[in-house]
Amino acid sequence: MAKELDFLTKRSEDYSKWYNELVVKADLAEQSDVRGCMVIKPYGYAIWEKMQRLLDDRFKETGVQNAYFPLLIPKSFLSREAEHVEGFAKECAVVTHYRLKTNETHDGVVVDPAAKLEEELIIRPTSETIIWNTFKNWIHSYRDLPLVVNQWCNVMRWEMRTRLFLRTSEFLWQEGHTAHATREEAEERARMMLKVYADFAEQVMAVPVVQGVKSETERFAGALDTYTIEAMMQDGKALQSGTSHFLGQNFGRAFDVQFLNKENQAEYAWATSWGVSTRLMGALIMTHSDDNGLVLPPRLAPTQVVIIPIGGKPEQVAAVDAAVAPIIEQLRQMGISVKYDNADNRRPGFKFADYELKGVPVRLVLGARDLENGTVEVMRRDTLEKETRPLEGIAEYVRILLDDIQQNIFQKAKTYRDAHIYECDNYDEFKVRVKDGGFFLCHWDGTADTEAKIKEDTQATIRCVPFGFEQTPGVDMVSGKPAVARVLIARSY
Amino acid sequence: MAKELDFLTKRSEDYSKWYNELVVKADLAEQSDVRGCMVIKPYGYAIWEKMQRLLDDRFKETGVQNAYFPLLIPKSFLSREAEHVEGFAKECAVVTHYRLKTNETHDGVVVDPAAKLEEELIIRPTSETIIWNTFKNWIHSYRDLPLVVNQWCNVMRWEMRTRLFLRTSEFLWQEGHTAHATREEAEERARMMLKVYADFAEQVMAVPVVQGVKSETERFAGALDTYTIEAMMQDGKALQSGTSHFLGQNFGRAFDVQFLNKENQAEYAWATSWGVSTRLMGALIMTHSDDNGLVLPPRLAPTQVVIIPIGGKPEQVAAVDAAVAPIIEQLRQMGISVKYDNADNRRPGFKFADYELKGVPVRLVLGARDLENGTVEVMRRDTLEKETRPLEGIAEYVRILLDDIQQNIFQKAKTYRDAHIYECDNYDEFKVRVKDGGFFLCHWDGTADTEAKIKEDTQATIRCVPFGFEQTPGVDMVSGKPAVARVLIARSY
Repeated sequence: MAKELDFLTKRSEDYSKWYNELVVKADLAEQSDVRGCMVIKPYGYAIWEKMQRLLDDRFKETGVQNAYFPLLIPKSFLSREAEHVEGFAKECAVVTHYRLKTNETHDGVVVDPAAKLEEELIIRPTSETIIWNTFKNWIHSYRDLPLVVNQWCNVMRWEMRTRLFLRTSEFLWQEGHTAHATREEAEERARMMLKVYADFAEQVMAVPVVQGVKSETERFAGALDTYTIEAMMQDGKALQSGTSHFLGQNFGRAFDVQFLNKENQAEYAWATSWGVSTRLMGALIMTHSDDNGLVLPPRLAPTQVVIIPIGGKPEQVAAVDAAVAPIIEQLRQMGISVKYDNADNRRPGFKFADYELKGVPVRLVLGARDLENGTVEVMRRDTLEKETRPLEGIAEYVRILLDDIQQNIFQKAKTYRDAHIYECDNYDEFKVRVKDGGFFLCHWDGTADTEAKIKEDTQATIRCVPFGFEQTPGVDMVSGKPAVARVLIARSY
Repeated sequence: MAKELDFLTKRSEDYSKWYNELVVKADLAEQSDVRGCMVIKPYGYAIWEKMQRLLDDRFKETGVQNAYFPLLIPKSFLSREAEHVEGFAKECAVVTHYRLKTNETHDGVVVDPAAKLEEELIIRPTSETIIWNTFKNWIHSYRDLPLVVNQWCNVMRWEMRTRLFLRTSEFLWQEGHTAHATREEAEERARMMLKVYADFAEQVMAVPVVQGVKSETERFAGALDTYTIEAMMQDGKALQSGTSHFLGQNFGRAFDVQFLNKENQAEYAWATSWGVSTRLMGALIMTHSDDNGLVLPPRLAPTQVVIIPIGGKPEQVAAVDAAVAPIIEQLRQMGISVKYDNADNRRPGFKFADYELKGVPVRLVLGARDLENGTVEVMRRDTLEKETRPLEGIAEYVRILLDDIQQNIFQKAKTYRDAHIYECDNYDEFKVRVKDGGFFLCHWDGTADTEAKIKEDTQATIRCVPFGFEQTPGVDMVSGKPAVARVLIARSY
């Protein structure tokens, strides 16, 4: 069995390589022949689908309605909001023509030069502009507000250096866009969605996150406030996992979206936008997985329990088949997804390694002797612990075990994270220690200059002004100037 | 109330205008400022989401796994399969550049000429090429087969004349792509998916469909057989609502996807592809709706029951609120979606018209007198019939009524459809009658010449060789030559 388990690079050897190998070997995703674009394979997509479904349910509980807006955005739309155009990355896919034609040798196609667009179209990198251009027609009175819409879609940002799930030119995401009659309501919505994201990350993905607000430098282009959830990977680096933006009236003004308020006066609508993407897959993988492969939280595992028979004789297998059938039925009744793998073309040892690689949370193994004894071997993927349990009542035991695994991997990740959050007041010390990863809580004078110096010296950035930490004023560790609060600084993905 | 109900053009006046108005006024979709691309509004998207969910469940029951492949396809891929490139429409959006830059006056963006792609990329019009290019890496042995994958995504075909849902440049769809070890298995999968589509159309959408196989002229480019479901709209025109293609080994050969069979010999994999799109929304609307607005099958209605209180005094409304609460609870327990509209800023008459326009299947109305009598007024949207029922047991009554509406609108559509299917053996007669719509079952000699003549003379096309009709040989009505079977001919969308 050593052979099967040794094929993945160890995290301690090369964390980055371990991740890249794991994504491919666990059948989650792979690079396509289109530069920077990935193929999400069925197993990876099944996890993403579960995320989508559970997040979407949570959105809808807060009144979100889904809709769909065009993929292509007229180039001129991007010029409407000045900060948006200055600040937003311009690495976009540009559509310039709308027709191909057969080439002269009739063995290929060429772009038809006669079919040039008058105005170029951009594949959406994000949809604030086209959505606010649409909102203009939907919003006339305060009675039309709030508008709380979301779309699940693909977006494209031309990236030079890509990594599966973490940074790809095309990725899947949801983008929520809301319009409100008051500043307070919009700010409340932006914070509400941050809470939805944080709750989803912790309860469903079992990924602990720090919630906070970005510095002005790190804000989304066009936002007045950008809220963020930041997760810590096993190498101590931060992964920004979701953002929620309070956009003020910037897009309302840029696209002339005015409404008549209760006093019959025209006002610009207040905006938010918020999104999470397939990047969450990266956070999920890097938070929990180990040198044997994926570790999946039961709430997102496409297969939660795998049952494997051992022992070769046909009558033995038939006896196991019969004993397992009612257990499978009970588990399914409980809403638990089970796979019974009695295929005879793969040895049990190979199956064990494969399901470990795929992160199936619970494995049950049964042989002839187990049947005699009325027992079953239970293995939990998170700790790799095995124990022998009575067959009687095993479904209920597994149900509780899945909950326990869900809690345990969250606690494990949280313990690791908390042990790697440091208060630091000395810049020389910071510069040395930040190389080893971890989140650093440091006083900051609030200036972009200090922020830039930290980044230049250490590649670390201010991830956010964190919520939920007790704050006391102090002295900026770089400039020595007074600082109101500590910010969270880390190297990041 | 006449005012509210009169605003929609009548079907008898202008069927096409009625459709265009209805889609917009019922808040289903609207044109965007991007040529040919639509915005699917929340109410329309809620219906599409229900379709997606129910179809996806049916796919998965047959072993389909979802995945995701890149939006962009290298231009050269389209040249690989000769029939595909010759036959497939070349009206595609072409990406030629990957970067914008701020213009000289710093008030807009221009395409950066330095960022020109070496090879142009096409926004997928369909994904056979990129998927089979990927399958090459996934398929090595017969043990890797079958591969049965599907993706829900957006696609783009540059259309000159567009109509909401029926023909748009960008649309949403699912495209299934499968690879098999044998011809028989692939053919079976293509027919199986046709059956899934037909069953979904009839059971869920309540849209009766004719299943059949396309003529060679009407086949998908690169297919050996194209199966289709054809629905009849209320103007007697056909709407192709879903297709399933048996692709033979064409894509296997074009992308060199070979596998070792059980005899250890290399063979090209056999392929199918199949898809339905947001066009189904058009079929749904045009099959059932009437001059008052949408008529939705209960299984797809985002709101299945609306409850409206009447009577103005606050204590009366409070009494209705109290009486309605347990009914809402009971309906929700039954999995029925209910909206209680006691908003006081719209008159009941306006609400009635609006929910009729939106196609809510059942309306309950309660006033003070109803409470006294222990009754409620029930209106069913399909027939607009009203009746007074006891409040006691109303939830159960509504549950049964919803089933009845689902059956009734299917039967109504089927009765209409069946009454407009004609056998016809005389071409002169055909040419006159086909102008009024309907499906014509006519003997066809099987030649492309005859097919072209019919199309040129009448704009009608051979929709399919239909299944499920008793076939007898005869004489082609155009050429007078012998014909093996009757085909279905109609004008179409």
